[in-house]
Amino acid sequence: MKAGVIGATGYAGAELVRLLLGHSKIDDLILSSVSFEGGKIEEVYPNFIGRISAPLVKADAVVSEADVVFSALPHGVGEQFAKTCVERGKSFIDFSADFRFDDDEPVYSAWYGKNYIYPELHKKSIYGLAELNRQKIKSLAAEGPVIIGNPGCYPTGGSLGAFPALAKGLNHAEMPVIIDAVTGVTGGGREPSRSFHYAECADSVSPYKVASHRHSPEIARNLAAMAGSNPAPRLIFTPRLAPVNRGILSVIYIPLKEQWSVTVSNANLPPSKEIEVKTAEIRQLYVDFYKDEPFIRILPAGLTAATNRVRQSNFCDISVHLDINGSTLIITTAIDNMVKGAAGQALQNMNLILGFEEKTGLEAIPALF
Amino acid sequence: MKAGVIGATGYAGAELVRLLLGHSKIDDLILSSVSFEGGKIEEVYPNFIGRISAPLVKADAVVSEADVVFSALPHGVGEQFAKTCVERGKSFIDFSADFRFDDDEPVYSAWYGKNYIYPELHKKSIYGLAELNRQKIKSLAAEGPVIIGNPGCYPTGGSLGAFPALAKGLNHAEMPVIIDAVTGVTGGGREPSRSFHYAECADSVSPYKVASHRHSPEIARNLAAMAGSNPAPRLIFTPRLAPVNRGILSVIYIPLKEQWSVTVSNANLPPSKEIEVKTAEIRQLYVDFYKDEPFIRILPAGLTAATNRVRQSNFCDISVHLDINGSTLIITTAIDNMVKGAAGQALQNMNLILGFEEKTGLEAIPALF
Amino acid sequence: MKAGVIGATGYAGAELVRLLLGHSKIDDLILSSVSFEGGKIEEVYPNFIGRISAPLVKADAVVSEADVVFSALPHGVGEQFAKTCVERGKSFIDFSADFRFDDDEPVYSAWYGKNYIYPELHKKSIYGLAELNRQKIKSLAAEGPVIIGNPGCYPTGGSLGAFPALAKGLNHAEMPVIIDAVTGVTGGGREPSRSFHYAECADSVSPYKVASHRHSPEIARNLAAMAGSNPAPRLIFTPRLAPVNRGILSVIYIPLKEQWSVTVSNANLPPSKEIEVKTAEIRQLYVDFYKDEPFIRILPAGLTAATNRVRQSNFCDISVHLDINGSTLIITTAIDNMVKGAAGQALQNMNLILGFEEKTGLEAIPALF
Amino acid sequence: MKAGVIGATGYAGAELVRLLLGHSKIDDLILSSVSFEGGKIEEVYPNFIGRISAPLVKADAVVSEADVVFSALPHGVGEQFAKTCVERGKSFIDFSADFRFDDDEPVYSAWYGKNYIYPELHKKSIYGLAELNRQKIKSLAAEGPVIIGNPGCYPTGGSLGAFPALAKGLNHAEMPVIIDAVTGVTGGGREPSRSFHYAECADSVSPYKVASHRHSPEIARNLAAMAGSNPAPRLIFTPRLAPVNRGILSVIYIPLKEQWSVTVSNANLPPSKEIEVKTAEIRQLYVDFYKDEPFIRILPAGLTAATNRVRQSNFCDISVHLDINGSTLIITTAIDNMVKGAAGQALQNMNLILGFEEKTGLEAIPALF
Repeated sequence: MKAGVIGATGYAGAELVRLLLGHSKIDDLILSSVSFEGGKIEEVYPNFIGRISAPLVKADAVVSEADVVFSALPHGVGEQFAKTCVERGKSFIDFSADFRFDDDEPVYSAWYGKNYIYPELHKKSIYGLAELNRQKIKSLAAEGPVIIGNPGCYPTGGSLGAFPALAKGLNHAEMPVIIDAVTGVTGGGREPSRSFHYAECADSVSPYKVASHRHSPEIARNLAAMAGSNPAPRLIFTPRLAPVNRGILSVIYIPLKEQWSVTVSNANLPPSKEIEVKTAEIRQLYVDFYKDEPFIRILPAGLTAATNRVRQSNFCDISVHLDINGSTLIITTAIDNMVKGAAGQALQNMNLILGFEEKTGLEAIPALF
Repeated sequence: MKAGVIGATGYAGAELVRLLLGHSKIDDLILSSVSFEGGKIEEVYPNFIGRISAPLVKADAVVSEADVVFSALPHGVGEQFAKTCVERGKSFIDFSADFRFDDDEPVYSAWYGKNYIYPELHKKSIYGLAELNRQKIKSLAAEGPVIIGNPGCYPTGGSLGAFPALAKGLNHAEMPVIIDAVTGVTGGGREPSRSFHYAECADSVSPYKVASHRHSPEIARNLAAMAGSNPAPRLIFTPRLAPVNRGILSVIYIPLKEQWSVTVSNANLPPSKEIEVKTAEIRQLYVDFYKDEPFIRILPAGLTAATNRVRQSNFCDISVHLDINGSTLIITTAIDNMVKGAAGQALQNMNLILGFEEKTGLEAIPALF
Repeated sequence: MKAGVIGATGYAGAELVRLLLGHSKIDDLILSSVSFEGGKIEEVYPNFIGRISAPLVKADAVVSEADVVFSALPHGVGEQFAKTCVERGKSFIDFSADFRFDDDEPVYSAWYGKNYIYPELHKKSIYGLAELNRQKIKSLAAEGPVIIGNPGCYPTGGSLGAFPALAKGLNHAEMPVIIDAVTGVTGGGREPSRSFHYAECADSVSPYKVASHRHSPEIARNLAAMAGSNPAPRLIFTPRLAPVNRGILSVIYIPLKEQWSVTVSNANLPPSKEIEVKTAEIRQLYVDFYKDEPFIRILPAGLTAATNRVRQSNFCDISVHLDINGSTLIITTAIDNMVKGAAGQALQNMNLILGFEEKTGLEAIPALF
Repeated sequence: MKAGVIGATGYAGAELVRLLLGHSKIDDLILSSVSFEGGKIEEVYPNFIGRISAPLVKADAVVSEADVVFSALPHGVGEQFAKTCVERGKSFIDFSADFRFDDDEPVYSAWYGKNYIYPELHKKSIYGLAELNRQKIKSLAAEGPVIIGNPGCYPTGGSLGAFPALAKGLNHAEMPVIIDAVTGVTGGGREPSRSFHYAECADSVSPYKVASHRHSPEIARNLAAMAGSNPAPRLIFTPRLAPVNRGILSVIYIPLKEQWSVTVSNANLPPSKEIEVKTAEIRQLYVDFYKDEPFIRILPAGLTAATNRVRQSNFCDISVHLDINGSTLIITTAIDNMVKGAAGQALQNMNLILGFEEKTGLEAIPALF
């Protein structure tokens, strides 16, 4: 089995190459890069010296030679490759937003500034969040080559934390869900810029694109999909940048439909025993909901999610809390934005569509430090 | 004028010493330390070599000799010093929570696990958030020695961001205000612990004490005080730790009473022109509200608060945003937790009670990197 | 095959557990911890949740039940365990300095402040630097259970960079070799202390134990062993601490016996073509010397070693340079102090003594970021 | 007194603006920037909001209107401005290498790739390392406007550590002095590049331009100047990059002429009492040498220089050590590369040439964290 990566020298592409090299079912790789065509990936990332020295070729060669194709290109340039792959009977896993939405109107075109070239192609694609669409992905793959819209990093960490509450209809119908997520810098990619210049972002925390980040509609769509016939919540999403290489730490505020203990008297006092009991109930609900998921860990009471406990792994850690009044569920989730939030999830999707065991190549234990 | 610092070798105490050495009205310092009594502060912090080599004495000596006394001791141990100071006609500025609440019941005792020894002393004290209590602080100081309860770091950054909206009654009466704040590690103090061991917190972001941090009641009290006859909001407060030395970046979600543009149709589309206009109106309201404040900077459109732009300074930077639907105000604030959040604010209080120009000793431009 | 780890909750021990879990020939683990006996390693390092939940037992149980025993205890406490293991026919791989020297006098006792309890035990032990002692390790293991003195982190990175030059006798007989190494903080271990408190070591670089670090005699001994009949160089060793979690970057200055181009005239001019040519010759000598080593990568011209290119891997990267005058060889090496400098090297030793392929369990590609 | 800064929006220029704003003798500033002409410095560095909002003008306007002119331009473009300044009777302080060497041949042209346009101008300039040239700077300034070649960052930290030993002729005539310096990232400037992209340099240490950095000839020249009639040492210089914003930590190896205790027997044993005594003697020599220097601190025994103890200050901290054999002096120095290594030293030079007290505007205590 030969895997191909278009755009292998960007951060997500290179991380995928690293994971593919450890995947027991993949025998060979073919990689492309516009910026470094003709070179080798070990020249761009000397980390690979001694492990892979394949030449970086054109994207067309990847499409021709690979058995399964990943595209780590930016938004808006991969449709043609997807079309060709499908025509040749190969599945296509796309890291961009191009196949994350069913239709281009109004959301995709409003946020990404363009329309689909091949609208019918998108009918055959599926959003690759296994925890939402596993059966659909498998069913579609059973019929032939598929196109996977690999989820964005924020939507992965944010959606997974909210899913059980929404599936159970715990949320208040008229109040927004707020997701406030702190990300590491690799989310900004490999291209140097002032925002990611060391001296500018070291020793600092800052929000950006407050309530205007284009992962916002993707998250909102996911929440609605999981809510099903329950009320779909309105979403407020704030991303922040912190000086860490990897990881997204999301805190998700879900106002509860049933507000069992709203009393002014205890507004300013420490959490009561009643709150602890109720928190444990909802934690159990989360444990049950995700009991068969290979990459989701519901943390025991006393632990909160931390990005350095999932670093380099495909895990999503989740901790469950309630506010002092018991009126709002507070969920924290941690993922590695480059693994579960990008390359690892792409590999998980490949495993699903090719019929491999879902954890293959993704069993790395999080780095301890 | 001789200033005294009890507990000068903790982080907040040492930062205060650094600021006092640059204060033009302070001629001399006297410093105490339990841990390093008999030594010199330059032995604990070699940064001070060549600038101050006063011996570290007992706290009693500080109380006896200083003209104004700062206490950077932990909660629960400073009341006796405060009492003695006042009896001797000296003002006392306390970094702990001991003088931040009027009464010990129920809030202080529930969160801090003890009761006031000298309840009457607390009647003469005042909460030292100048932007809330400037006139009261000045009036009280005009009558004699005062006790200042210097605000906590989170309450400073969180309250300042919410004040204008609450003073104007913009907030929805029944929905909570959420403050989600990311802090640097100096907030954890100088004592080594696993949580602040380099390898454990570097390259990681994690929440802690979710909805159970004892700064929560202090913030809630401040919001109520500023709201006055407007509805006092319920508060949800989440702190997170990020690998930066200094700074608190708060994001404050304030649901608006007037929800002028809640329409399902635009729920997932980029912010409209209408939102931009409304945001500008509220930003102007913030500019007007704080127009005479020496340490508050309302950032222009396009900028969000960042901790590295207030580092080493007494500034609080504030940016104003609205969610896509215009239903929730999103405020971001940045302070240096050790300056505006601790030692700088204490100096600001000293300036107020001793009648110095409020900015004296606090004019440092934020470090650029 | 069941591997045992005594002292599994220290940094080196836990890293070893992580590596052992990915080793295809190890079926089971048994772990001990004095500090957390009765608990589980996942409670100390939640990273392990879902991957290992074995109870932490007493060291004696490890010695009884394991087929091969690793000890990640501090110096001076492992001899008894080693003795028992050997008596029971089990090999013992010791992370401490206790089995790194043949005799205790004068070096070990002078630097470590104690003498061997079982001197005869040390006759059967061997220093586990495969690149120096591979054949000896294998030969000894062929005879029965062995005790491995697993090398220190600094001695690994420093020695590997100097070996080819010394083996070839390039060094000047009367001038010292200088090794100046910058380490990450995990070398300081898991126990909180002021030196490794985040706010004290973030954003700072500092040397420590200048010319008085106890890895110094271990390095000097290695250099002499490799020099053989060539002149053994005197050593000057300076360690520095930098704010990174993992890695040691050593710069090694080796004055050359043959000083082919020492002329005052070019003392201050950029490197000449002649220097480039000579550098390439010596680089080739390094390539040849290490051509069969699975974990050593001699970098091509234009690259210098960097710790983030070996992070999480068992590689030692080496780059070769000459000073402007061509009189001094300048070697840079990078290792991950917790892998090649500790746990990975221990696993490499296990592979050697148990007859597994040497790279088993150590094929991780360095983390890209 | 109006100070002008050409190139005010680069890192060194902006740091200088920050320092000038705190200088009691400077009443006004005029700033230029090619990249941001017509804008304001607060738009480039929002840190300045509320403190300075002067427009960024053309360099010619700075030359016309300022009383003293600083140039923070890159190498090779400032000669014309220097010429005009001198003609108009204004002193010119240049951050580039253009006025650091007396003649352009052979050193400057070989390393910087160009020749002087106005060679005679360089006759009137002086190298602005006060600890080497204070009297010459003052004398020259007494005669009229001067041109200062402000020292490079590495040459400052490296030279100051070696000066006393060389002035006293302690160094061995035939052995090289080695300077191995670890720098922070601000030395790389404000322009984004891969080398300083956060994810590429965070959590990593790496050397660069080994024995080929163009600060090398500047340091060698300084050492020769201080050695005077004593032997001028050959220099080997290695820079490394570490993930800190500010600071240079240099370790300087000076082989001693008098090698009083070279004995094979103690080669691998801990430092003897004799070494401690000899170290104390040399430390005292350093204390005496620098006794009148306002910005140099010789650290007491037990302390080594650390960059976080000089951060944001104009100090150079120095610690004195000997290797185990007593044959090589090991000096460590720490400076803030942006202050003593650039903008602070420029201000120190301005104070000298304008007759201000040398410490004016430079009394900041190093940031504690």
